[in-house]
Amino acid sequence: MARNVVPLANLIEQFERLPGIGHKSAQKLAFHILSMTDTEAKKFADTILLAHEKIHRCSVCCDLTDSDVCSICLDEKRDFSTICVVESSKDVIAIERTREYNGLYHVLHGSISPMNGIGPDEITIKELLKRLNNDEVQEIIMATNPTVEGEATAMYISRLIKPMGIRVSRLAYGVPVGADLEYADEVTLTRALEGRQIL
Amino acid sequence: MARNVVPLANLIEQFERLPGIGHKSAQKLAFHILSMTDTEAKKFADTILLAHEKIHRCSVCCDLTDSDVCSICLDEKRDFSTICVVESSKDVIAIERTREYNGLYHVLHGSISPMNGIGPDEITIKELLKRLNNDEVQEIIMATNPTVEGEATAMYISRLIKPMGIRVSRLAYGVPVGADLEYADEVTLTRALEGRQIL
Repeated sequence: MARNVVPLANLIEQFERLPGIGHKSAQKLAFHILSMTDTEAKKFADTILLAHEKIHRCSVCCDLTDSDVCSICLDEKRDFSTICVVESSKDVIAIERTREYNGLYHVLHGSISPMNGIGPDEITIKELLKRLNNDEVQEIIMATNPTVEGEATAMYISRLIKPMGIRVSRLAYGVPVGADLEYADEVTLTRALEGRQIL
Repeated sequence: MARNVVPLANLIEQFERLPGIGHKSAQKLAFHILSMTDTEAKKFADTILLAHEKIHRCSVCCDLTDSDVCSICLDEKRDFSTICVVESSKDVIAIERTREYNGLYHVLHGSISPMNGIGPDEITIKELLKRLNNDEVQEIIMATNPTVEGEATAMYISRLIKPMGIRVSRLAYGVPVGADLEYADEVTLTRALEGRQIL
């Protein structure tokens, strides 16, 4: 194909902007789009627009939803006394997959990162504090990422919440199940030793 | 996020249908779409529709183009006596990148593959033969893939064209430049030996 077929070049460029898609993959995806039927291509474009239009933050937990309040916040079978604080909606999916947690969530949509100009006001800490005004909540589980930013965010939020008399906990650090001790980094191993449990 | 946010689930599913995109990547791409501004999302969807609508086959060489005849077929500086036959538009891009070839192309849009139910009529062989009716064309370079199907297609087409008194050539087989002989497969090495050239 000649390089100057504008609509195709534009399509490749749009795919290249997506995360994790290089030039070769973008080209492959663009050619795949061209090989679709008209209906399929229209459906693909419509799904993008519809998802973008309908999905917004839950007015309670800030997770993504297509209704005013998300299905987890509305579910009366869940334990309203515990809130698990995560950085993103993807983390909610990951924790839900364990089927071990039955409380509510709060999605921060990021972590405090002064290097990237993200302060406490840029993430949904205010919305979290507002949820703690009733007496129902007894424990906040900080499940931010085990990174410098996630750690700082957990510390920051726990200092705000502890004075309110609510228990604040943090996910356990340790060696991942199925991993090889030989390849675990020193910090993780140190944390695993510190957090050792009596058998 | 709860699993039942329908517009997002649909978007993830659409991305999963694309080649080389697994569930995790589809999820990452879908969340990226949600993080776009309205304008960006609209532009992405529009580019898909526009590319799909505007791009079709060149009426001469069957390559993809947004005009009636593609820019290579219209370019008077090119050598109209040679046609390079390739399986897909991506191959045209690859050969154009060498800047060594100045003839025309013919895109087959596939290769003969009885296993997949693709016979000579499913690819653009008829269109190629129609181009050979004038006396201008002197050589056909078969640049189909070095696979069983590509090879069979090259043989099939060359048998049709040779009786017309037109020279038919095939890309050279051999070891790829920069590769390690140690890791070359036996068939490639055999072909490289057979095709050895005098220094």
